[in-house]
Amino acid sequence: MLTYDLGSKNKYYSLYCCIRDDILRGNLKCGDKLPSKRALAFNLSVSVITVQTAYEQLLAEGYIISRERSGYFVADVQGAMGEGRPAQVPQRKESKNFAADLVSGSPPAELFPFSVWARLMRTVLSDEGEHLLERVPCRGDITLRREISACLYRMRGVSVDPECIVVGAGAEYLYGIIVQLVGRDKLFAVENPGYGKIYSTYSLYGAKCVPVSVRNIGADPVEVERSDAHILHISPSHQFPTGAVMPAANRARIIRWARATNAYIVEDDYDSEFRLVGKPLQSMLGLCPDRVIYINTFSKSLAPSMRMGYMVLPSELCARFLKLFSASANVVPLFEQKALALMIGGGYFERHINRLKNYFRTVRQEVIQAISALPFASRINDTGSGLHMTVRFPDALSDEQIKKIARERGLNVRCLSDYLIAPLSDYEKVAVINYGGLKKGVAENIASLFHK
Amino acid sequence: MLTYDLGSKNKYYSLYCCIRDDILRGNLKCGDKLPSKRALAFNLSVSVITVQTAYEQLLAEGYIISRERSGYFVADVQGAMGEGRPAQVPQRKESKNFAADLVSGSPPAELFPFSVWARLMRTVLSDEGEHLLERVPCRGDITLRREISACLYRMRGVSVDPECIVVGAGAEYLYGIIVQLVGRDKLFAVENPGYGKIYSTYSLYGAKCVPVSVRNIGADPVEVERSDAHILHISPSHQFPTGAVMPAANRARIIRWARATNAYIVEDDYDSEFRLVGKPLQSMLGLCPDRVIYINTFSKSLAPSMRMGYMVLPSELCARFLKLFSASANVVPLFEQKALALMIGGGYFERHINRLKNYFRTVRQEVIQAISALPFASRINDTGSGLHMTVRFPDALSDEQIKKIARERGLNVRCLSDYLIAPLSDYEKVAVINYGGLKKGVAENIASLFHK
Repeated sequence: MLTYDLGSKNKYYSLYCCIRDDILRGNLKCGDKLPSKRALAFNLSVSVITVQTAYEQLLAEGYIISRERSGYFVADVQGAMGEGRPAQVPQRKESKNFAADLVSGSPPAELFPFSVWARLMRTVLSDEGEHLLERVPCRGDITLRREISACLYRMRGVSVDPECIVVGAGAEYLYGIIVQLVGRDKLFAVENPGYGKIYSTYSLYGAKCVPVSVRNIGADPVEVERSDAHILHISPSHQFPTGAVMPAANRARIIRWARATNAYIVEDDYDSEFRLVGKPLQSMLGLCPDRVIYINTFSKSLAPSMRMGYMVLPSELCARFLKLFSASANVVPLFEQKALALMIGGGYFERHINRLKNYFRTVRQEVIQAISALPFASRINDTGSGLHMTVRFPDALSDEQIKKIARERGLNVRCLSDYLIAPLSDYEKVAVINYGGLKKGVAENIASLFHK
Repeated sequence: MLTYDLGSKNKYYSLYCCIRDDILRGNLKCGDKLPSKRALAFNLSVSVITVQTAYEQLLAEGYIISRERSGYFVADVQGAMGEGRPAQVPQRKESKNFAADLVSGSPPAELFPFSVWARLMRTVLSDEGEHLLERVPCRGDITLRREISACLYRMRGVSVDPECIVVGAGAEYLYGIIVQLVGRDKLFAVENPGYGKIYSTYSLYGAKCVPVSVRNIGADPVEVERSDAHILHISPSHQFPTGAVMPAANRARIIRWARATNAYIVEDDYDSEFRLVGKPLQSMLGLCPDRVIYINTFSKSLAPSMRMGYMVLPSELCARFLKLFSASANVVPLFEQKALALMIGGGYFERHINRLKNYFRTVRQEVIQAISALPFASRINDTGSGLHMTVRFPDALSDEQIKKIARERGLNVRCLSDYLIAPLSDYEKVAVINYGGLKKGVAENIASLFHK
């Protein structure tokens, strides 16, 4: 007779586990007859109900079978299941702590108006209550989309129907949606050098990418025209990492190309809020809303934990988006969407941006002064847009040397050549100085980079 | 001389816009010389600084060029930009309001412990403060992953290393990640009939899918073995829509197949919490952690607005996940992750599940009674798992007839055949009754479906 110690609570489950394990280990073999419920209950000093429930569970899972009038038998569960080995976990790499990180910059957390944000979240909780549990429409909450539309008008001078706006969980998420909207059989042209995530995300989603060279005035329109690309992903307001600003003539030429070939332009406006000198540059979206997919994100301007971005879709793609995704809920929680809508609508967002801009104007000055004061020859290329600049060191031996010296002095820095997705000449000896994550006063540290 | 009315504030921007628009409209042509800053300032009664700032903006965007000692000239911006037509917005379809929806069921919102949830969110806001702004590691917050691991142990009897858990924005999002982990060149086997989103999401991500027939005991292992699939996506605990529960022998056989061919099994455990009779069925994850990707979601058990799910990855795929995504932040806001961690850790989640189970036991009884009491011949197939059952109507003429009668009586219902992704015989005249969205007492309405 089977004999198990079942403990004091959840006896039927313990019994189920004991029998199951005996079957899996081969102690009970295919065809073996199980004791009658009554007999086993008596043997284990439990109720018949306990045994019956355990047997039913085993029956439901197919470990045992029931033959009418003869009882329960072990099913043909071959012992091939083996032991469940605990999964080996890969080691995580430790990232070195740098004195100053000039590679990946998020605004210092203390600049974020956390008390305002917390108050808005509490307001959302009280005001919306159980509505927060409702399914979010695929394009996102309409209140937020209306605020984004109004904000785009105020900050970028473009008028966008909120119905064409799609909210998503950050830029990379939206890149993935774009591949699904236009199809991965299409050719994607991406900037070279460029932000690696663009190339890698498109590739990860199965799209084929071709590089388009970026010179000091942005993506080369001749290469765009010669490519068979169906999509061109660019950042005309402030290219990363070169800092190039695309002149109006080239924008017009690229728009003509898109119109002529029915191609789409992804205008990645990732840091247009941070034009530190003058107003933000005019967007391509305003010039050609039927061929431009406009993308921007709040991760950069608010906080890296806030995975929220949006895109403005041309009507054709908006229709396709609804066709593909109208049965899916939006992935960004309604709670964050409502809170962000309040933040924009209440003017807190723009105030925050202005505070950040003032802050980074100072940081930028510090960085420029630190570099200019150096005996080491350097040429700063800074268009006043966004939160990074490039510095050319004609005397440096190599990019590796620049980075090695930087590392030794606690600075994390990359060179233009690190962002090349295909080989290009004349991109050596240029460091990319991303000061979006720097604190005021850190610039002095940067100076040490250039003291030999 | 250019003459514009610049209004009272933001004069430089107004001036910039006026000149830009004149260039775009062709009123100012390529090569035209702009007035000197001093002359234009005098003409418009603004300061020279205003004109200078506007010119600098136009210069930065490439609308004008500067020639040393001769002044500013309109650049070669060909007038091809056209008017920015407002994007046409596609019409949204109105969805009919049904008296009872037996297709897509989310638990009634009033069952959700909103006051507990709101309290936990307030706690998170106070306790975590500005930590909430930090970047979330790619796999998700470790506190939440630990709670999920503990919960999996309590509810599913499996021991999982939290390091192997990846939090994501709902099941579909995770399906997409799986395609990227195993590669879209691999063949995906999906259940037929099955949950359409599985097939459509894999396809959307570019993976090729083959159907595997589901009979009354789940996916057919013979078809699995004959396929060249590298991934098999199944719901062994409670298949949707058939309700099939895969017996232990078939689970073992499929695990043997996966081991022999180095294939992966996606165990989609979407509603295992809702086994209304007995304990949840044993998971395949516990049997073979090195070949099983386990997926579950909180959207179903908590609220549809809560786009949170998770998967447990075998160590090999976990390493690949870190390789691909360690530079990316997790897409689920930290705020929701912390709140959910508190909800699970405080026992509120399991209490909520138990409340839902009690509730749906009543609904299920009502549904069964309503159907059993009918003169119209029907055979209920209900395994006591999950929140749906199937009902066969041998006398019905066709599936269309069943759905038409249902629609006329305000019931939204689908048949098994609606979930076929490839033709299969003997799947007619079976309605799928998803009662996960029903309220108590609504079952009487369902009865009317079956009165001719």
